[in-house]
Amino acid sequence: MLRLDSDYMAGAHPEVLAALTATNLERTTGYGTDPYCESARRLVLDACFPEGGRQHSDARVYFLEGGTQANSTVIAGLLAPHEGVLAADTGHIACHESGAIEATGHKVLTLPGADGKISAHLIDEAVAAFRADPSRDHTVAPGAVYLSQPTELGTIYTLAELEAISAVCRREGMPLFVDGARLAYALASPANDVTLPDLARLADVFYIGGTKCGALMGEAVVIPNPSILRHFTPLIKQRGGLLAKGRLLGVMFQALFTDGLYERVGANGIALAALLREALRARGYEEAAPSPTNQLFFTIPNDELEELSHIVTFEVWGAPGDHYTTVRFVTDWALTRDDIEPMLAFLAAR
Amino acid sequence: MLRLDSDYMAGAHPEVLAALTATNLERTTGYGTDPYCESARRLVLDACFPEGGRQHSDARVYFLEGGTQANSTVIAGLLAPHEGVLAADTGHIACHESGAIEATGHKVLTLPGADGKISAHLIDEAVAAFRADPSRDHTVAPGAVYLSQPTELGTIYTLAELEAISAVCRREGMPLFVDGARLAYALASPANDVTLPDLARLADVFYIGGTKCGALMGEAVVIPNPSILRHFTPLIKQRGGLLAKGRLLGVMFQALFTDGLYERVGANGIALAALLREALRARGYEEAAPSPTNQLFFTIPNDELEELSHIVTFEVWGAPGDHYTTVRFVTDWALTRDDIEPMLAFLAAR
Amino acid sequence: MLRLDSDYMAGAHPEVLAALTATNLERTTGYGTDPYCESARRLVLDACFPEGGRQHSDARVYFLEGGTQANSTVIAGLLAPHEGVLAADTGHIACHESGAIEATGHKVLTLPGADGKISAHLIDEAVAAFRADPSRDHTVAPGAVYLSQPTELGTIYTLAELEAISAVCRREGMPLFVDGARLAYALASPANDVTLPDLARLADVFYIGGTKCGALMGEAVVIPNPSILRHFTPLIKQRGGLLAKGRLLGVMFQALFTDGLYERVGANGIALAALLREALRARGYEEAAPSPTNQLFFTIPNDELEELSHIVTFEVWGAPGDHYTTVRFVTDWALTRDDIEPMLAFLAAR
Amino acid sequence: MLRLDSDYMAGAHPEVLAALTATNLERTTGYGTDPYCESARRLVLDACFPEGGRQHSDARVYFLEGGTQANSTVIAGLLAPHEGVLAADTGHIACHESGAIEATGHKVLTLPGADGKISAHLIDEAVAAFRADPSRDHTVAPGAVYLSQPTELGTIYTLAELEAISAVCRREGMPLFVDGARLAYALASPANDVTLPDLARLADVFYIGGTKCGALMGEAVVIPNPSILRHFTPLIKQRGGLLAKGRLLGVMFQALFTDGLYERVGANGIALAALLREALRARGYEEAAPSPTNQLFFTIPNDELEELSHIVTFEVWGAPGDHYTTVRFVTDWALTRDDIEPMLAFLAAR
Repeated sequence: MLRLDSDYMAGAHPEVLAALTATNLERTTGYGTDPYCESARRLVLDACFPEGGRQHSDARVYFLEGGTQANSTVIAGLLAPHEGVLAADTGHIACHESGAIEATGHKVLTLPGADGKISAHLIDEAVAAFRADPSRDHTVAPGAVYLSQPTELGTIYTLAELEAISAVCRREGMPLFVDGARLAYALASPANDVTLPDLARLADVFYIGGTKCGALMGEAVVIPNPSILRHFTPLIKQRGGLLAKGRLLGVMFQALFTDGLYERVGANGIALAALLREALRARGYEEAAPSPTNQLFFTIPNDELEELSHIVTFEVWGAPGDHYTTVRFVTDWALTRDDIEPMLAFLAAR
Repeated sequence: MLRLDSDYMAGAHPEVLAALTATNLERTTGYGTDPYCESARRLVLDACFPEGGRQHSDARVYFLEGGTQANSTVIAGLLAPHEGVLAADTGHIACHESGAIEATGHKVLTLPGADGKISAHLIDEAVAAFRADPSRDHTVAPGAVYLSQPTELGTIYTLAELEAISAVCRREGMPLFVDGARLAYALASPANDVTLPDLARLADVFYIGGTKCGALMGEAVVIPNPSILRHFTPLIKQRGGLLAKGRLLGVMFQALFTDGLYERVGANGIALAALLREALRARGYEEAAPSPTNQLFFTIPNDELEELSHIVTFEVWGAPGDHYTTVRFVTDWALTRDDIEPMLAFLAAR
Repeated sequence: MLRLDSDYMAGAHPEVLAALTATNLERTTGYGTDPYCESARRLVLDACFPEGGRQHSDARVYFLEGGTQANSTVIAGLLAPHEGVLAADTGHIACHESGAIEATGHKVLTLPGADGKISAHLIDEAVAAFRADPSRDHTVAPGAVYLSQPTELGTIYTLAELEAISAVCRREGMPLFVDGARLAYALASPANDVTLPDLARLADVFYIGGTKCGALMGEAVVIPNPSILRHFTPLIKQRGGLLAKGRLLGVMFQALFTDGLYERVGANGIALAALLREALRARGYEEAAPSPTNQLFFTIPNDELEELSHIVTFEVWGAPGDHYTTVRFVTDWALTRDDIEPMLAFLAAR
Repeated sequence: MLRLDSDYMAGAHPEVLAALTATNLERTTGYGTDPYCESARRLVLDACFPEGGRQHSDARVYFLEGGTQANSTVIAGLLAPHEGVLAADTGHIACHESGAIEATGHKVLTLPGADGKISAHLIDEAVAAFRADPSRDHTVAPGAVYLSQPTELGTIYTLAELEAISAVCRREGMPLFVDGARLAYALASPANDVTLPDLARLADVFYIGGTKCGALMGEAVVIPNPSILRHFTPLIKQRGGLLAKGRLLGVMFQALFTDGLYERVGANGIALAALLREALRARGYEEAAPSPTNQLFFTIPNDELEELSHIVTFEVWGAPGDHYTTVRFVTDWALTRDDIEPMLAFLAAR
């Protein structure tokens, strides 16, 4: 059975696992103070600040175990107690993290995103409405902006869109935080024009996803200007995210940023998604979200979906009518062309 | 250099790593819903409830990534908003978790432990003092009891002590939570008379440590009577501790509870600690805590410690005078007799 | 200038102030343990449970200083850590309390209310959607229901509507919490068919507003079945709401529940609102919310509003176009027919 | 019966009540935006910054309803998420606020106070220990200092002591917060050499107590340099402390700072305490804390205490043996010489 429910279904990329195996019995200090984390941080910074210089030496990289942990720890660190975070109404922190942001004491202020994306205009409007509200002391102040690249619907922000969002955020003194849980698949998409250096220039905090992009687990949080989030290590510890054997994350990110592995991870997911997208479109199914990345959302007649369910697993996303279901198929670094062949064959048949 | 700073310095036990490698490219569902977690839960329950029956089928096992995460998530789940948790003043939650318990809104109510241990009597006194306080509505109510087996000083509770503590807790309706981050080393100590079935009978929640006992990371939280902590999964998710690739923890605990590996892990740490303890005593150093497990606390003249520091790393624990330092040496599953030989030789020399 | 911005603009009803003055130099114990609080509790219970009996003796009444404090303290007490509270999107806790609920760690789950009201059907749908969600462990569970009587738009729930909502809540084991900050004005409305005994029967927690209904400050929180919210006093203290001179609230609520004062307070606000409503309608202004209580929402041409603003103050509620503004006028116990005469005259003129 | 349990037993000073009565039916805007609060703020600033100038115009004054509310709101506003607050182990926030600080997510880091007081030296040591701790990222960082003037034991800090504490705090960048719930009684003590301008110069935040010093309720929080605590109003609202009829606090503090009332309030409490202290000492009872203010702590033989309990109420503070009890007597603005006469007579008898 082909399993396309999500991109966290397999273990680690073989090169990542090999790195873990090779270093397994070494003894290092804990909590991210080891040489592997140090080396991985440097590799991540090299990718984000290829020109080196002051930015490269000022910026900080922290490794956390997972996305919800990264999101709630970063946001709790960025906000003052009276502030909330702006996010798309489909944003992961708004929908799928069991109230993790609220558990840190902060409200998620949702914006009506389009295809999972917010915009400089929506942020602008929200800030203006807050400013104009005579009872704004009784309202939650927008204190930071959260977005995902790619979004929960697989769509991506263009460079122009991110430039505009970043400009509003800086004008308003609101940090911009980019959740890159699936960043490898955005970077590898032919539709993408946003590079790691762009993110490092435009975001105030962002993370490079490992869990869904070839590692067993782990996200690399990059803070270009660390004055925005001082004392992050005790915050990670306090929120339960400081891995005792922190070097595992260093070893894995070192592997991901060696020999272009992070690019290869993304490229594999994107290539297989492209094949499936083509086949689903050719079959005449309607695309429910214009995703150019590794998540595909299609609306499929229920009888055909039933047949499909014998060869592939997926997530149900909604039911736009009695006879149709919208589902999500997700590809990743671990799948091969052979793996998806039965599904391509099914779609081509008739 | 021999590294004895802590027991989280190496990766995973080779049998654990082999299990991860063997299953690496399989695709399973996430967040602990996979067959490996299912199997590991059964193995853990078999060890805790060897007679099976109702208790075996009622009890629940959850896998979390680390100790601070397990402590704060469990305690936040056990306490009502007005309650705090009783713990030794040397308890890990009181000292070394960056205020993780307070970050969930609860006070740690410290008791003056002896050698890292609290007692039924101390708990009794604290509850009685709270009850007798005419302004107890202005005081934090003790709502649960936390202790570690072994403690942060390597000492262990006897069965009689745990029986007494458990009895007080049940009389008072306060759940007893046992932190077993290093449980393998307590279970393997010749001084120990507390078994896993004893813990499962006497504690209301406890965990079986993986991070320090052979796994890359992970703790198995056992809840004998799950009515005490319903809806634990969303709480784990909310606190950022629900591993997307949850099956990793299942695979690792399955390995740890196969072929007696958890016992072997503990036995290795205990055997090497016994050799070192003997040598340190023979050398005439004073033992700073009567630890029968894998942590050794000795007070050493500074000039000799300086020499030692050329062959072994350790943690400094305190300075009971200008010429002496108390240090901690920790053994674990990953060390061999050969590894510690230079230190034994140094101690025997003169 | 006539001030109709809100119903908290004057001090206390003269009978309430007289009671405070008469008892001012008495010395009593603090924090609500005094005889005045005891007496006021009994009077409140007499009004809620006129038939006495078990319910009268079981129920509990607590006095808190204000509405946001009551809302956040009650809701924090009712919810488990993983739960959120259902409320109308116009609900006070969702909009105008600076994120007080989120500051206690819980999400406000908003429902698309109509005229400020939610319904049994909307609650039902929300619960069903949560139940049906395969990833509900990653979603915030609805754990309680919040509504206001009257609502923030002045509308009121009918007895039938409340019966239906209460039935859903009990079926689902979700406590129903009714915010009665302006309850006097609901009770006095000719459109109302919900009595205090009805509320005591249908709600699990509710409060009888004092701040906006004749007291200097204070809300009487009624808990018909106290097992739902044990240990409420330390929670009030912890959240900063336990007035040292708690007897002030007892003295004031004793006065409000003596000689039908609470009814008279409501009746005055309602009678004056009726006169103004009639005059505003007669003038041809459109009613923006069908409020039968003491808040009036009307859409007024900007040029006429400019003229009105010379004789009356109000709150701006919105701007449904370039030439119109929706405003709110609020009456209360402290205004007289003479006070509003200039406004009536203005409206009748032309 | 003479009631000396505490200083919150009577209502408001007659001049304060007269001010409330005189303004009762006026209609003003809410939440502290009214002219009375404005005027009271100016009077408070005049008392704190008699020389006017930049400090007078920069400083901010906020009125909150009570002490626990002020403490938890200020401290939550001052601390970063990973920080805790240093306080005496007898400090009100450590002992008698039901975990209010912890409920905002922060640990109270206690120092072993002497007679209720901490010192520059103790703070220095705590900071040095934190700095020297190699695992300080796992420890709660001291982020602010809390002390009470007078303390919970009635003792007061000298100007030299406060200067030293303030100097350490500024050197370390830790705000100093002074709880002045009973400040009138410190200011009026003949032993005192700390003025309001001294506090305004040495503390970063402090409050001038109203609840125990002549008002029905209320504390005036003074923030000399408001950059330390921006956006305090939404924080007060969020924590439930923003009184709708905020003008009540303005009216009361206006009265307290008119015609030297705040001084008279303090002087009355101090004068009566002096008489009682003298009589208790003359009787031969041992003073349990060297309090020069309005709280008296004496250790009394149980048989004599039993007799005393027929004419006066008090709080029991401890039992330093089977035959003795330590109790607290508290005087205030509302008592007269006539009120305490029976107790003086009893003590003089024999």
